[in-house]
Amino acid sequence: MGGDDAPHMVIEGVRLALIRHPGTRFLLFGDEALIAPLVQAHPDVAAACEIRHCSDVVGMDAKPSQALRQGKESSMALALKAVKDGEAQAAISAGNTGALMALAKFTLRMFPGIERPAIAAIWPTMKGESIVLDVGANVDVSAKMLMDFAIMGEAFCRAVLGIDRPKVGVLNVGAEELKGTAAVREADEGLRGAPLDLDYIGFVEGNDISQGHADVVVTDGFNGNIALKTAEGTARLIAHYLNSAFRRSFFAKLGALFAYGAFRMLRARIDPRSVNGGTFLGLNGVVVKSHGGTDGTGYASALDLAIDMAESNFAQEIAAAVEKLKTAVSDTAPQNAAPATAEKAVS
Amino acid sequence: MGGDDAPHMVIEGVRLALIRHPGTRFLLFGDEALIAPLVQAHPDVAAACEIRHCSDVVGMDAKPSQALRQGKESSMALALKAVKDGEAQAAISAGNTGALMALAKFTLRMFPGIERPAIAAIWPTMKGESIVLDVGANVDVSAKMLMDFAIMGEAFCRAVLGIDRPKVGVLNVGAEELKGTAAVREADEGLRGAPLDLDYIGFVEGNDISQGHADVVVTDGFNGNIALKTAEGTARLIAHYLNSAFRRSFFAKLGALFAYGAFRMLRARIDPRSVNGGTFLGLNGVVVKSHGGTDGTGYASALDLAIDMAESNFAQEIAAAVEKLKTAVSDTAPQNAAPATAEKAVS
Repeated sequence: MGGDDAPHMVIEGVRLALIRHPGTRFLLFGDEALIAPLVQAHPDVAAACEIRHCSDVVGMDAKPSQALRQGKESSMALALKAVKDGEAQAAISAGNTGALMALAKFTLRMFPGIERPAIAAIWPTMKGESIVLDVGANVDVSAKMLMDFAIMGEAFCRAVLGIDRPKVGVLNVGAEELKGTAAVREADEGLRGAPLDLDYIGFVEGNDISQGHADVVVTDGFNGNIALKTAEGTARLIAHYLNSAFRRSFFAKLGALFAYGAFRMLRARIDPRSVNGGTFLGLNGVVVKSHGGTDGTGYASALDLAIDMAESNFAQEIAAAVEKLKTAVSDTAPQNAAPATAEKAVS
Repeated sequence: MGGDDAPHMVIEGVRLALIRHPGTRFLLFGDEALIAPLVQAHPDVAAACEIRHCSDVVGMDAKPSQALRQGKESSMALALKAVKDGEAQAAISAGNTGALMALAKFTLRMFPGIERPAIAAIWPTMKGESIVLDVGANVDVSAKMLMDFAIMGEAFCRAVLGIDRPKVGVLNVGAEELKGTAAVREADEGLRGAPLDLDYIGFVEGNDISQGHADVVVTDGFNGNIALKTAEGTARLIAHYLNSAFRRSFFAKLGALFAYGAFRMLRARIDPRSVNGGTFLGLNGVVVKSHGGTDGTGYASALDLAIDMAESNFAQEIAAAVEKLKTAVSDTAPQNAAPATAEKAVS
């Protein structure tokens, strides 16, 4: 029921995802009167779906605390409960992010050994795609949380991007170990020292994200969210420049006409719908958040992501890494506790 | 002497800046044997310049502490001393950022009432240009520092962008007052409450920067630096997409040929050289940092910026605002000291 164009775009997303993943079964939580006619319009969709009627929905502007108190019978809460009960292998929503995070934490609980969930985003790069996390779940983080994010992001990268041995970097203002906040410097030290089987490459800077220097970029939810939205804003600004440049003269218009195919390809590559879906990592179950403003194509990307996750060994890999880290952290705790001083100026 | 192509690009920058600002006088600090022949090649440049020979330079990888201990006779230190002594109205360098900041703080001292300097960047937007600060001077900030940045950024925006009444926003992960770190929420409250003559519009998000919703975007140096570099990386990624899209087919190539002028215009607009120059605000004097990798065109932009600053009433305006804030902060200190709790999930 969540998102600007629901439930229409959800059903359209299911239809597209079914073409790519035949055999998938869908439980649709929401207002049956609205959903049933849309489902019945496509026999293949109708055959793969089961509608679970819910009379309640979580509003787009409900506070997380409100959703927790009043949203127990909402479509969002019941979809999460289906994951908890083992009826479903993943929950997908285009609704209220804060409410989804709060209900998911409450319903599914944290993965053992992980302190806090993170939202992972798939970021287009020169080399293909990278994972950036956290892009919005935590505004304040400790070094331990950043190390957890590194472990989860690496396993996630293998599961959804199929990269065998992802390179992991920590986002910082400079590549030198002396720069940055205490948390990032301590996490850097921890990731270098811990006996994790990670290809840790050290610090990466903001401009390195799009270059694809790291397959997994670790950061806190404040920075990650601002970086993600800044990149979206920049893409929109350049699209705007592009439009006005190609409308300026007769020859430019003619050129744009000849280059129509190139423009279409360009638009597809900078289209945020093709990488739609932030995944909540760190929970006991797969939860994918789709952009609220997306359409069927974007929603299908979020479904693809959830299906890839559900079919992977993600949870077992995280469990193994958490175990290794636990041993390492109890071994090295006195060392890591030493405070480091911050260097102030960055280039 | 600083920057990849110095001193050549510096002299070329001077030549270009002189066309736009005739009558400006330049003191060139550095190796006379290298500089003199370049200056003498252009009679108009030679007439406007005085060379101050320095045998020492600050290396690009010198630590700030090293520059402070050993760089007293360097071209960088002596250029800053000329500003302190009133011989020059602004210092411009394409050298080591950390060393420049450390030497500038040591030589010029902080502006009375301002705790820490900030680096301000000029950011292209849908509406023209905005100021973003801090983009790299401080990794940890207090609410008071963010308020100082708002005051300085607003005066800077009037001085260099000529906007009469700039809109000021604080960068956050959501537009709601409940979200974000304690420092940004406290700064937001302070800016709403203080009797400053500021057009404060509240929180802005990462995607709002390029839209130009605020003329001045206030943030800490960690976030600001990551946002700035992420935007640069995104622009480079899209330029790469553009290139490959227009080389894909015969028609696309033909289109690109017809649209050559449009491409040139587009490139000029996303060219980081045209907005080259981060200004160090909060010091007793004007110091502009040019990108190390820039050329004469970029260096001329940094010179333009320095000249605009030196000719403005910037310092007097800051002094007046600091005075107002001082009264306000001592009035409201007990209220601002109340800690606020953080809401964790962001959309």
